[in-house]
Amino acid sequence: MSHTIKTPDWVKDAVFYQIFPDRFATSERVTKPSNLEAWDSPPTPRGFKGGDLLGVAEHLDHLENLGITAIYFNPIFQSASNHRYHTHDYYQVDPLLGGNAALRELVDAAHARGINVVLDGVFNHASRGFFQFNHILECGEQSPYLDWFTVKGLPLNAYDHEQAPNYGAWLGLHALPELNTTNPQVRAFIWDIAEYWVKFGIDGWRLDVPYEIDDDAFWQEFRRRVKGANPEAYIVGEIWHESQRWLQGDQYDAVMNYIQTRAAMAFFGARSLAPLYPGGGFDRLQPLDAAAFAKTIDDMLALYDWEITMAQLNLLGSHDTARFITMVQDNKSALKLAMLFQMTMPGAPMVYYGDEIGLSGGYEPASRGAMPWDRAQWDMDLLDYVRQTIRVRKAHPALRRGTYRTLLAEGELYAFERKYETQRLVVAFNTAAEAKTLDVPLGQGAAHAHAVFGDAQHVVLHGTTVTINAPPRTGFVIGLE
Amino acid sequence: MSHTIKTPDWVKDAVFYQIFPDRFATSERVTKPSNLEAWDSPPTPRGFKGGDLLGVAEHLDHLENLGITAIYFNPIFQSASNHRYHTHDYYQVDPLLGGNAALRELVDAAHARGINVVLDGVFNHASRGFFQFNHILECGEQSPYLDWFTVKGLPLNAYDHEQAPNYGAWLGLHALPELNTTNPQVRAFIWDIAEYWVKFGIDGWRLDVPYEIDDDAFWQEFRRRVKGANPEAYIVGEIWHESQRWLQGDQYDAVMNYIQTRAAMAFFGARSLAPLYPGGGFDRLQPLDAAAFAKTIDDMLALYDWEITMAQLNLLGSHDTARFITMVQDNKSALKLAMLFQMTMPGAPMVYYGDEIGLSGGYEPASRGAMPWDRAQWDMDLLDYVRQTIRVRKAHPALRRGTYRTLLAEGELYAFERKYETQRLVVAFNTAAEAKTLDVPLGQGAAHAHAVFGDAQHVVLHGTTVTINAPPRTGFVIGLE
Repeated sequence: MSHTIKTPDWVKDAVFYQIFPDRFATSERVTKPSNLEAWDSPPTPRGFKGGDLLGVAEHLDHLENLGITAIYFNPIFQSASNHRYHTHDYYQVDPLLGGNAALRELVDAAHARGINVVLDGVFNHASRGFFQFNHILECGEQSPYLDWFTVKGLPLNAYDHEQAPNYGAWLGLHALPELNTTNPQVRAFIWDIAEYWVKFGIDGWRLDVPYEIDDDAFWQEFRRRVKGANPEAYIVGEIWHESQRWLQGDQYDAVMNYIQTRAAMAFFGARSLAPLYPGGGFDRLQPLDAAAFAKTIDDMLALYDWEITMAQLNLLGSHDTARFITMVQDNKSALKLAMLFQMTMPGAPMVYYGDEIGLSGGYEPASRGAMPWDRAQWDMDLLDYVRQTIRVRKAHPALRRGTYRTLLAEGELYAFERKYETQRLVVAFNTAAEAKTLDVPLGQGAAHAHAVFGDAQHVVLHGTTVTINAPPRTGFVIGLE
Repeated sequence: MSHTIKTPDWVKDAVFYQIFPDRFATSERVTKPSNLEAWDSPPTPRGFKGGDLLGVAEHLDHLENLGITAIYFNPIFQSASNHRYHTHDYYQVDPLLGGNAALRELVDAAHARGINVVLDGVFNHASRGFFQFNHILECGEQSPYLDWFTVKGLPLNAYDHEQAPNYGAWLGLHALPELNTTNPQVRAFIWDIAEYWVKFGIDGWRLDVPYEIDDDAFWQEFRRRVKGANPEAYIVGEIWHESQRWLQGDQYDAVMNYIQTRAAMAFFGARSLAPLYPGGGFDRLQPLDAAAFAKTIDDMLALYDWEITMAQLNLLGSHDTARFITMVQDNKSALKLAMLFQMTMPGAPMVYYGDEIGLSGGYEPASRGAMPWDRAQWDMDLLDYVRQTIRVRKAHPALRRGTYRTLLAEGELYAFERKYETQRLVVAFNTAAEAKTLDVPLGQGAAHAHAVFGDAQHVVLHGTTVTINAPPRTGFVIGLE
């Protein structure tokens, strides 16, 4: 069915920014309850800092200045957890975030700036306070909703942590009762939610642990409902590994591309990797040299239809990982190179909030720190660098739509070509700690070469070879004509 | 401040009908989950039968034919209990009832027929699934909502019924955590709800156990917010005893007039009273003769400003009592006489759903049976009688607005006058098991007397006396000119 595969065009051109809503920005217009943690104190597993969606709306300048064109929000629906993956009500934006009215304002303000909004869809599990689960807790065998969950005993032992839950619960966690998606009413309930918010105006869904709903027909109908509401809505699954099953064009448009994340971290961060960092998917990460990196990338790019690859969600880290800068033990050059790589690859790059100003933090809760708004705390050099990498991507269709071909992969040197219609670019990296000369074979010659990112004086064209005298740990984007 | 007392005019002319939403009528248009009890099975304490608001909308003919002009609904908001006094979300109509869209349709359909809609406001306590309480259950000392409830220990032992709740709970019931209404945010939360639904289009609030929020300023502001949204909105408190504190014109318009309920049951049902019926407020009820009844009524009518009295909510029973017919051990004549009395007294009469067709039932759950829609099960004679009593009330402003004066109160005979502008009526009862002649002294003579309810042939005017040859257990309404 590959001839029918179609993903949203806007995603191919998008630069995403991931926001963890409790931690990005707070607005004085949202009344807050009393017991919040100080904004600048270290994040805790269960504490709340009181970020909200009006706070985001009031800081869209920062995103626009950076070049961002889309936001992916961690969950925003009413939930009794700071990450909001324990959904209490799928139709209500959390009151701490400002409620549904705040989402209305945020979506409208974002759209006015050409910024799309993608929400986190957490449909495998709900929470103990979720109405239909609470109904069984309260009414036992007389609840009409018994078959909304997988009940193995009554009364539910939802708050008795000394025994395993007597109901289906994600990872065996009492707090996360799993919805029974074999129940037609539960299926319809989820599809209705998906459609409702797309009609409200959001631009897509990131799906949390969607493989837990192990049911192609469920996701096929999910796609029909979402695309019926907006054919350009984006559906991106949280799947960390190869995802062919879901990326045939009839389920998701893309997945979160942690394959690329791991590879980029292992190659650009090879010299400073914290290899045994616990948790967060990177704990067994080993350094890669350029050849191994190139193979990983080539294999990755062969996984899916090109229409899918151009819509992949590429990221350097997330709320589920340590921050990139921390994974590479504060080696800023590794972050810079990886940022440039992300901005020059097919698939939509995503910046985890704060990575652009040097925010650090290990696996949760540390990676979910509050965004500082005192610019004295920002790494302005890094911010400027990230802005430049985004600018070069947005200026060159070949970086977004172009074909990919590895040109050089030796030791710590790596280069590839992106080519789209008449536009042809070379992206090259010296990840070594010393200056290196890269002789990048073009295969097909060019008349002129000029650096559109990186110092033009270091770049020389010799027939079918571009020679780059690259300072230590630098990257280049070179236009060929 | 009595000169400023103002209650809604429409209430003075209204005839209410109380509906327990799970039990009145079910619509095929509302999708229901699987585990419901059979409609015609005996009601159980915790089972659901699946009545809904579209079912009410589809049966408005019955109400209109009866002469009903207002509905009081037991709670309709999302709640994991069949009576819905355990509120889970004050902004959502329960999905079993059809959700907010069903309320929209019902309110619009009711208004189109001149029927107003009053909802049950349960603001003292919420439920264990209520978001801000669930938040503390889930997040403990790190929940921002700690001060929304009276927390005495953590973790909350909400589902550990072997120990008393370590939080403020109504009647010490774990399931009913009490909102901390000293918290300004909680106060605003409740006032916002009250205003929201009045703006939505409801015509008033019946307040559940409002004395538990022992705070005049709270209710004064509540009234300001409600009346600000609609000056004609009705505010009626569930207070079973003398209520001067709340009926000074600055808090409620009225209370549920259980004082009159008890008196009517004790007088009209004196011959068949089930005096030791357990629970439901009537357990210590003793028979009254006419003299004692008259004193009770006179005392009652002296309690409040006349503007309040005309807006009182008069009832013969409710979801909180045994049904009247059961309290009088199926003595239908007692119910008929009490119905006529209710329809001829100042204050808005209310019919508890099903009383009009002979539905019986003791204290809960029995008094909350499902309404049968097979008319073969209806007492058509009773239905016609109730319809006639409503018709006579609606035809005579004096019964709604007129002054009250006792004319006769001897043994089992009772009569009073209602007088409004040029209209003058006598209401008379023979509650004896034998025919009786009532010589009702009018004080001031009249030219003509004619029965507008009851057989005209039994009524003769002799100067300043109306003589009624009343068959056993009959009532009369007599117009004087």
